[in-house]
Amino acid sequence: MPRNGEDARRRLQQAALDLFLERGYEATTTAEIAARAGVTERTFFRHFPDKREALFHGEEAFRAALADAVLAAPADLGPMDALRLAFCSVEPVLVANRSFSEPRHALIARTPALQERVLTKTAGLVDGLAQALRRRGLAQPAAALAAQVGMAAFSHAIQAWADDPTSSLESHLGRAFDELRGLSGTRNATASAD
Amino acid sequence: MPRNGEDARRRLQQAALDLFLERGYEATTTAEIAARAGVTERTFFRHFPDKREALFHGEEAFRAALADAVLAAPADLGPMDALRLAFCSVEPVLVANRSFSEPRHALIARTPALQERVLTKTAGLVDGLAQALRRRGLAQPAAALAAQVGMAAFSHAIQAWADDPTSSLESHLGRAFDELRGLSGTRNATASAD
Repeated sequence: MPRNGEDARRRLQQAALDLFLERGYEATTTAEIAARAGVTERTFFRHFPDKREALFHGEEAFRAALADAVLAAPADLGPMDALRLAFCSVEPVLVANRSFSEPRHALIARTPALQERVLTKTAGLVDGLAQALRRRGLAQPAAALAAQVGMAAFSHAIQAWADDPTSSLESHLGRAFDELRGLSGTRNATASAD
Repeated sequence: MPRNGEDARRRLQQAALDLFLERGYEATTTAEIAARAGVTERTFFRHFPDKREALFHGEEAFRAALADAVLAAPADLGPMDALRLAFCSVEPVLVANRSFSEPRHALIARTPALQERVLTKTAGLVDGLAQALRRRGLAQPAAALAAQVGMAAFSHAIQAWADDPTSSLESHLGRAFDELRGLSGTRNATASAD
């Protein structure tokens, strides 16, 4: 897409987010988003299939970046370490996107129609991670389990990072993966006391 | 609801599932479901808000049963053990429901509109489990992490149980929680070799 196309896309995304926050998601139309961005509605539909997708652009690229990072992790790392490294690798992307993703997060929290979309997005990320783990040689059901557990730790770290942005995502990820080990270790402790 | 109301509800659920499988989910109307069940469309809407919900009846009760089982687990158990016990406790419900849930699973696998609904259902179960863990004294973010990780193990065990129904769900859950510990232990092993 030419440079001015990129620019229109960004303005449309920002206009969509601003209008959703000002007027509510349901009450905002694609025509209003296009008008706010200074383009035609036809241009809106060249970039996005509907108003909801204006909020989720970049999802495919993010999924691919995570999967590539899992594949690029040193071969001797276990699945959870490969996932942790992959999550650390997207920190710059997430930092660059913060001024958009933080208000979007607040919008999603009060818009059920968008919460379903986030669940679908998360499920897609988990699928992508599981596929990457399989390509590293992990068996099929174990790969899905590891991807889901890794995503739980990632979500946990993202939340902690939102609450405390003075620490890096990497350090929050380190703590989240430590907590995972703490959780799973609980039964070992109980079992050895049997 | 009186006994004949219960009976009508069950017939509507079965009619909905049968018709979705025969004609596809999108092509089936609530009028057709009601006719197949031998009731009026008005009766359909007394039981369900729309055709999709006819497939997901019982979700609230299931969520409550899981949460109650988490609360009823011995107080000295850690969160993962409390979750494992809770999942084991619903095995009889799942066995009783198998003749409905197995064809439903096949239908969902080929119907994207239903997959979103399953994600919402799963997120609701995770929320319920996290709330129950908090009532057991676990802090807020740790409870959400444990609930998500436990749900990942539960989904993994349910899948293994579908593939091998000759073993009990309990034994599949035991293996799934063992796999969880194996995953989380990976980095410990790596770290100690550093």
